[in-house]
Amino acid sequence: MTPTPRRISLGLFLLSTGHHIAGWRHPAAWAGMPMDVRAYAEVARQAEAARFDMLFLADNNCVPQTDWPAVRRTTREHILEPISLLSALAMVTERIGLVATGSTTYSEPYHTARSFGTLDHVSGGRAGWNIVTTSNANEAWNFGRESHLAHGDRYRRAAEFVEVTKGLWDSFADDAFLKDKESGVYFDAAKLHVLDHKGEHFSVRGPLNLSRPPQGYPVLVQAGGSDAGRDLAARTAEVIFSVNQTLPEAQDFYADIKARLTAHGRDADSVKVMPGLFPVVGRTRAEAEDRMAELQKLLHPDVGLSLLSFLTGGFDFTPYDVDGPLPELPDTDVGKARLKVIADLARRENLTIRQLYERIAVSRGHHMVVGSATEVADRMQEWFEGRGADGFNVMPPTFPEGFAAFTSLVVPELQRRGLFRTEYEGTTLRDHLGLPRPPHVARGRVALSA
Amino acid sequence: MTPTPRRISLGLFLLSTGHHIAGWRHPAAWAGMPMDVRAYAEVARQAEAARFDMLFLADNNCVPQTDWPAVRRTTREHILEPISLLSALAMVTERIGLVATGSTTYSEPYHTARSFGTLDHVSGGRAGWNIVTTSNANEAWNFGRESHLAHGDRYRRAAEFVEVTKGLWDSFADDAFLKDKESGVYFDAAKLHVLDHKGEHFSVRGPLNLSRPPQGYPVLVQAGGSDAGRDLAARTAEVIFSVNQTLPEAQDFYADIKARLTAHGRDADSVKVMPGLFPVVGRTRAEAEDRMAELQKLLHPDVGLSLLSFLTGGFDFTPYDVDGPLPELPDTDVGKARLKVIADLARRENLTIRQLYERIAVSRGHHMVVGSATEVADRMQEWFEGRGADGFNVMPPTFPEGFAAFTSLVVPELQRRGLFRTEYEGTTLRDHLGLPRPPHVARGRVALSA
Repeated sequence: MTPTPRRISLGLFLLSTGHHIAGWRHPAAWAGMPMDVRAYAEVARQAEAARFDMLFLADNNCVPQTDWPAVRRTTREHILEPISLLSALAMVTERIGLVATGSTTYSEPYHTARSFGTLDHVSGGRAGWNIVTTSNANEAWNFGRESHLAHGDRYRRAAEFVEVTKGLWDSFADDAFLKDKESGVYFDAAKLHVLDHKGEHFSVRGPLNLSRPPQGYPVLVQAGGSDAGRDLAARTAEVIFSVNQTLPEAQDFYADIKARLTAHGRDADSVKVMPGLFPVVGRTRAEAEDRMAELQKLLHPDVGLSLLSFLTGGFDFTPYDVDGPLPELPDTDVGKARLKVIADLARRENLTIRQLYERIAVSRGHHMVVGSATEVADRMQEWFEGRGADGFNVMPPTFPEGFAAFTSLVVPELQRRGLFRTEYEGTTLRDHLGLPRPPHVARGRVALSA
Repeated sequence: MTPTPRRISLGLFLLSTGHHIAGWRHPAAWAGMPMDVRAYAEVARQAEAARFDMLFLADNNCVPQTDWPAVRRTTREHILEPISLLSALAMVTERIGLVATGSTTYSEPYHTARSFGTLDHVSGGRAGWNIVTTSNANEAWNFGRESHLAHGDRYRRAAEFVEVTKGLWDSFADDAFLKDKESGVYFDAAKLHVLDHKGEHFSVRGPLNLSRPPQGYPVLVQAGGSDAGRDLAARTAEVIFSVNQTLPEAQDFYADIKARLTAHGRDADSVKVMPGLFPVVGRTRAEAEDRMAELQKLLHPDVGLSLLSFLTGGFDFTPYDVDGPLPELPDTDVGKARLKVIADLARRENLTIRQLYERIAVSRGHHMVVGSATEVADRMQEWFEGRGADGFNVMPPTFPEGFAAFTSLVVPELQRRGLFRTEYEGTTLRDHLGLPRPPHVARGRVALSA
């Protein structure tokens, strides 16, 4: 047998009107997309036709920038709840994976196990859960808390949350349901497990009122880049969405994750590392640069400064000269990894505040490529073969055109090079990613012995 | 102008494999329905073709009967999460309303406002929220609580919960979103409201990260029959699902609700009272009775006794003679109204424990009709014209046949009599029910004045 060649995994990061923060102003952009399920459905079908592994939805439980003067210029203050949206998209797609973000800080394991488990059932095994601990203090105020949980506490809670959730998904064994009309026995009660979890943060009896999900567990995704985030990822994740500006950074991150996996006794191939990629694609490099310039012209200065402040945990840049250097940023409790990426970028390229926000407003710290299909594919191949990435979370600047340029130009080029599939081989998200289905683990006590 | 004639409203109560607890054993029943979104989709299309006002899904956050010996004979221990399921069904239907149950005891207003608001957006204004306070103590154990909240506390929390949720839906004014590509202003920040709620049970800043739902608020539904439940319903509900065995009971309930509405300054027509109706329909009465007998043969005695105990808040009937009279039931803190209906039924018809569970196992305290289409339509007309009901929450014994008998035989009869629509006149659930769209209420402070 010849081993299956290593292939690039591709996710489509569906964010509001697209990843360029001013892209909604482009004449061809769908400005109404955030509340329009039909627009999402069309993009989802487009991604499936291009054989993407998955759709990905971020989430937050607040209007992130309520009091920012530039808030009225942004499209991300209203979003559809991601599990409901993906359940809807499950009905208009057949193969593509459906990954939603779910916070461990402002939810309960029982609810999370139910909703992601239901998405897995509704989609026939295509669900994934992007586990986040939430770094926006605005969320705390919507749930009766005065302040946000400290970084370390959030990660301890997250680790326990994930374990409880897995335990709940294992409430029924895979073969528990007999549905025997003749004898009248619907399920084997000896295959129903009561978790009886009592831990530091949660006390959850179980069982979950759901058959075991088709994938066993939905695919577990993580995005934390801090030390605590990487540790949680190495213990629990199967896909990691990372933020890397340069290939050496990406290689360091990649090597660190794979080493941590080994330390935790896990196979290095059991986790896919997928950095964000912001592609602006043209038929030629000149066309791509024109597209980028066209988008940048739409960016209002208030928006750039607001976004920069938001991404640095609320740091106030207004006292500083916008054409001067970046001040020293204080060590905050939120989004440590992202803060470091931003500060490193400014230092490395000696950017002023204005130059920095112009860069950040576009890609939010992620790697950006502006070029022809060949150039974008070259960059992806370089990162993939250089072990900086197993795949990419693609962040189109606009919908639908910005994404259509990627699927019509870059995807065929990757396929020609044998780096990306031309057809789905399996039906579940685990199939697409080459991840094993986790076996059932009997936990807690049996509800009733036969 | 001639006034619109009063018309019957119809909901389809989608429960597991159907409302007859042993119905899944019938050769034609879909035993796999609880986890099968395609089965739900087919029934939803069937209900829409019959011009039903809405689908309705119950919910619970536990396996209700974990430790019951008969649990293995029941199909209701696994259910899909209702909001995700209805979001999926929104994509395969166009007009029918989509009502899910959501607990105010084990959720947060911010999550509830998001998920029901999202369902309203995804479905183009077809969402409804059945507000329950949850009467099953098993749920408490899945959320870190030792015991269930007391009845009165639950209803105070529920009243505050609903007010906060409405306030969150009003975060953005209806006309807040300009999406003006030319000026770069996406929304008018003066039309974004920060709720700043601080109450007995909740502290929620807001705003909600969602445009105002198409219906303003999803339709508010309530099912509580106790004094506290009726009071909450009269203050907040637009649809009431009731449990009544006889027309006089239904008339009393109906009159009581309408009087409470007036006391709260609300229009008596602003709430639709819809008792549950368990119909077993045949082309003739004899055929209906045969169908019923066929279903009853499938009922295992263990199941009947388990269900009776469950419905009476866990009362243990095993020390009593199953062919003797019903013992005095203690006044429990859960499901007071249902308990009374059950005890009254046993007393009125002088039923033994066995006879009682045979009746209960079928209709769970709801009104049952076994008969021809004419007889079922007669009964519905009698209740409707006698002001015992504005409509019915139809509880078919099995899917798909038990429901198909109702849509193919009873619905045309109701249409012939002019009691039920032959075509949808509007597009939203509020349109179907003749309920007004609530105007936006500006609450809290404005985020940013222009």
